[in-house]
Amino acid sequence: MNRQLGRQSLRFEEAPFLFSYASIGSGREEEGPLGEAFDAVCEDGKFGEKTWEESESTMQKEALTLAIGKAGMKRDAIRYLFAGDLLGQTMASAFGLKDMQIPWFGVYGACSTSGETLSLASMSVAAGYADTAAAVTSSHFGSAEKQFRFPLEYAQQRPVSSTWTVTGSGAFLLGTQAAYEEACEYRKKADKKRAGVHAIRVSGVTTGKMVDYGIKDSMNMGAAMAPAACDTIVSHLQDFGRQPSDYDAIVTGDLGKVGKEILLHLAEEQGFQLERQHEDCGLLIYDCEKQETDSGGSGCGCSAVTLANHYLPSLENGLLKRILFVPTGALISKISFNQGLSIPGIAHAVVIEAE
Amino acid sequence: MNRQLGRQSLRFEEAPFLFSYASIGSGREEEGPLGEAFDAVCEDGKFGEKTWEESESTMQKEALTLAIGKAGMKRDAIRYLFAGDLLGQTMASAFGLKDMQIPWFGVYGACSTSGETLSLASMSVAAGYADTAAAVTSSHFGSAEKQFRFPLEYAQQRPVSSTWTVTGSGAFLLGTQAAYEEACEYRKKADKKRAGVHAIRVSGVTTGKMVDYGIKDSMNMGAAMAPAACDTIVSHLQDFGRQPSDYDAIVTGDLGKVGKEILLHLAEEQGFQLERQHEDCGLLIYDCEKQETDSGGSGCGCSAVTLANHYLPSLENGLLKRILFVPTGALISKISFNQGLSIPGIAHAVVIEAE
Repeated sequence: MNRQLGRQSLRFEEAPFLFSYASIGSGREEEGPLGEAFDAVCEDGKFGEKTWEESESTMQKEALTLAIGKAGMKRDAIRYLFAGDLLGQTMASAFGLKDMQIPWFGVYGACSTSGETLSLASMSVAAGYADTAAAVTSSHFGSAEKQFRFPLEYAQQRPVSSTWTVTGSGAFLLGTQAAYEEACEYRKKADKKRAGVHAIRVSGVTTGKMVDYGIKDSMNMGAAMAPAACDTIVSHLQDFGRQPSDYDAIVTGDLGKVGKEILLHLAEEQGFQLERQHEDCGLLIYDCEKQETDSGGSGCGCSAVTLANHYLPSLENGLLKRILFVPTGALISKISFNQGLSIPGIAHAVVIEAE
Repeated sequence: MNRQLGRQSLRFEEAPFLFSYASIGSGREEEGPLGEAFDAVCEDGKFGEKTWEESESTMQKEALTLAIGKAGMKRDAIRYLFAGDLLGQTMASAFGLKDMQIPWFGVYGACSTSGETLSLASMSVAAGYADTAAAVTSSHFGSAEKQFRFPLEYAQQRPVSSTWTVTGSGAFLLGTQAAYEEACEYRKKADKKRAGVHAIRVSGVTTGKMVDYGIKDSMNMGAAMAPAACDTIVSHLQDFGRQPSDYDAIVTGDLGKVGKEILLHLAEEQGFQLERQHEDCGLLIYDCEKQETDSGGSGCGCSAVTLANHYLPSLENGLLKRILFVPTGALISKISFNQGLSIPGIAHAVVIEAE
């Protein structure tokens, strides 16, 4: 039986397997430290499309297609698709995934969306609702700047606290042991090197509450999200009765330099030292100095591709044993910003372990 | 054990109880045929706020507060909150519900959102992930016209195929038998007339795929959504091995006059006669002739308040025994419309029964 833990966590009795994944990025992400691990890259981020929004849709479609292909599956073996993005009315997901013809739950959790989709997909598999479920997210620098800030042509200057929206998409397949074994068999035939890799499982989740400290600066999203990240991480550790040292890494989505400092400070106030375990996808995806990306990367795509390019391979290869993946979202819209409202944050945590 | 049925349906072994609900509307909805059943109405739709968006947020907060109050519960007994709306970045839900401090899964399914939130909430309860989960949605005429069409000040003329976004919010609490019994006891003490009402349960769901027939007319959303409604209803009947006559009503969200005709035609082509059972919330919420609301009501709020004001009381009072509730969504955004893209549809079905 799956178990409710504390106020907001679940531990899965039969932890779903995360058995296939793929990532796509653009030139800027390829130049970064994790660039070599992308399954596909399009230098100009256009992916052959005319608009940024359609480019983002194409990324989602291709990322999911690659993840399905790697597992040697048929599309219609996927029972649920949990997908979302940053755009109004989750436009990138809708237009990217409509032709897949897979029952779809559209989700919105700002940049925490990759955590939200992974949570819901693993909850569905662990409940016996699906043998295989997919989680897909994306973000695109061009479409996000247009959606949230200014047209790129305006050439606005950016403060050092600002983050750069990652152009990227990550797709993940979660399933039962049987689904995993079937995919495994296929992949071992296709690639001998895969024979020794560790299985990856999602063993639990902690679902975030919205936290609002009243931050209003859209160029300082790290500060807006750090309190939510802290709330979810502390709740998780309390619900599971764990210490930070029970994890090889506690990985936030896109706090950047500014948000990281605030998180460490807030967690310390609550009695948890996160220095040794804390890492942030926004600080890993780019070489901030060399690439002049200010406080780091951001966007749903940031945490999704960092998970796919860095953490999952490290878990498969035995370099990591257990991580807490905590994508962080800033609940801002063009309208709320223009109306002078604050930016509430949210963070969804997923426990990912190697067998 | 909960059972997967066919390609896209689930039947719950222990069907969750839908044990409390509340609805809020504005003057236009109060003037309609279901107006007397609202728990609260604000004539000008402003709810004391300065902006339409904040008004919509306030509606969600008040609807959920009312549903919680009716059940005599404490807010923190709700383990998950599934909520969404039509606005970019689900702004109404984020700002309306952030202070609730309940773990939140933000969802987006356009006007199918009430079906999506009810599906996910009942799936969570049936899986043992939550003793009580809440599903909340809203729409607002002012915020939706601004988001999707033209500023109201522009006084644009509307074709008869157009629908009117309902200003309304519905909140629903789903839970285990224990949660239901606790709420029941409280309500019977508070209101003697509640003693004889039938318990309402969600016994299954059918999750929709996106369906795109290439419709591009944002003033004819019924035509854009009808194919998705048909796809979900037909899949549901096939997965469950049922006929339309197994339901007292098959209730779509907001197809309106135009969409209803298309749905009946498409379903007939697939061998299902829906004439006798089919009803549409968009056609029930307003008196279209008298209120000059063209093809009917629309928006996430339309199906949510019609469920709360009409169907749930009829199930509780024994007038109805089993309905298929199928909110329908048109996946349009301001950007996709201006870029000349089509409007894919989606519909999520929920089986609601009286004991």
